[in-house]
Amino acid sequence: MAVSIAPVAEPPRRIPLDRAAFRWAGVEAKEYKSHAVDAAGMGWQAVTRHTIGPAGAAFETRYFELEPGGYSSLEKHRHVHLVFAVRGRGRALVGDSVFDFEGLDAIYVPPLTPHRWLNAGDESFGFLCTVDAERDRPQPLDDNELAALRANPATAPYAF
Amino acid sequence: MAVSIAPVAEPPRRIPLDRAAFRWAGVEAKEYKSHAVDAAGMGWQAVTRHTIGPAGAAFETRYFELEPGGYSSLEKHRHVHLVFAVRGRGRALVGDSVFDFEGLDAIYVPPLTPHRWLNAGDESFGFLCTVDAERDRPQPLDDNELAALRANPATAPYAF
Repeated sequence: MAVSIAPVAEPPRRIPLDRAAFRWAGVEAKEYKSHAVDAAGMGWQAVTRHTIGPAGAAFETRYFELEPGGYSSLEKHRHVHLVFAVRGRGRALVGDSVFDFEGLDAIYVPPLTPHRWLNAGDESFGFLCTVDAERDRPQPLDDNELAALRANPATAPYAF
Repeated sequence: MAVSIAPVAEPPRRIPLDRAAFRWAGVEAKEYKSHAVDAAGMGWQAVTRHTIGPAGAAFETRYFELEPGGYSSLEKHRHVHLVFAVRGRGRALVGDSVFDFEGLDAIYVPPLTPHRWLNAGDESFGFLCTVDAERDRPQPLDDNELAALRANPATAPYAF
C-alpha cells in the first residue's frame, strides 16, 4: 500500500551556509527594495535581501545584509518582526529605543512601530528576519512620528 | 494630534543571548513535550524547548536544545519546518535523507515528511525552528513509513 503524502513544492533539503562568503546555497542576493520610495526617512543604503524560505508556510525567513555604513528604510507596518543578528554588529532604532545587537541577540518590533536597521561595525552586518507570508506593505512615518524621533537625543541620529 | 498606534501585547525589546549559558533573556527552558506518546518512534531524550516569540505573528520561533545523546520524536505533520543550527553539531533524518548540519546551516522539512533531530556531537546541539502559529499536532509514523526507514541503511540507525 502506498504511503499517502500530500503533494509538496520542494523536497527535504539541507541548505548549507558557505561560512566564508556567508551565503546559503541556492539563495540569491537581491536588492533590498526594487524601487526608491520618495518619502522622508525611506532612503536606504548598501542592503541586500536573501529569501531563504520555506515553501508551504505562513511565514518567510529572510537574511538581510548591510555593508559598513549601510542602513534600511525608516518605516512601519502592521506585521511584526523577530530578527536575530548572525553576522557582525548591528543597531536598531525601534520605537523610541536604540538597541545594539550581535551574535544571535534578537530584536522584537511590535506592530506599527517605526524602525530602522543599521550596520554598527566595520564589517558586514547580517540578520535573519522572519515575517508573516501575508503582510502589509511598509509605510513611511508620518510627520509627528518623525518629529518625535528627531526631538529625542537617543533616536535623532537615526531619524534621517 | 496623537499618533495612531494599534494596541500591542509587547513593547519593542532586545532579547539578548547570554552566550556562555546559551540562553535568551526571559525565555524559559521547558520540556520538549509535556507528556510521553506511546507509539513507535515517538520517544525522545534530553531535549528542551525555548519559545522566543514573537507576539502578534502568524509564526513562532523556538530554540530547541539537545544534550549529547539527545534526540527528538520521529514524527510527521502538515506544517513545515525551517530550522537553523546555532549551537554544536546536529543530524536530521528527513524523509529518506540524513543530513548533518551546524553553524547556521538550514534544513527544510516539507509537509507530512517523517523527521527526527539528533545531537551528532559531544556538546550541546541547538537549533532555531520557526513554525506556523496555527499548526497541526505531530503524528506518529505509520507502519509502512517505519518499515521503509528501517529497510534503508541510511535511515535505519535513526528509525528507533
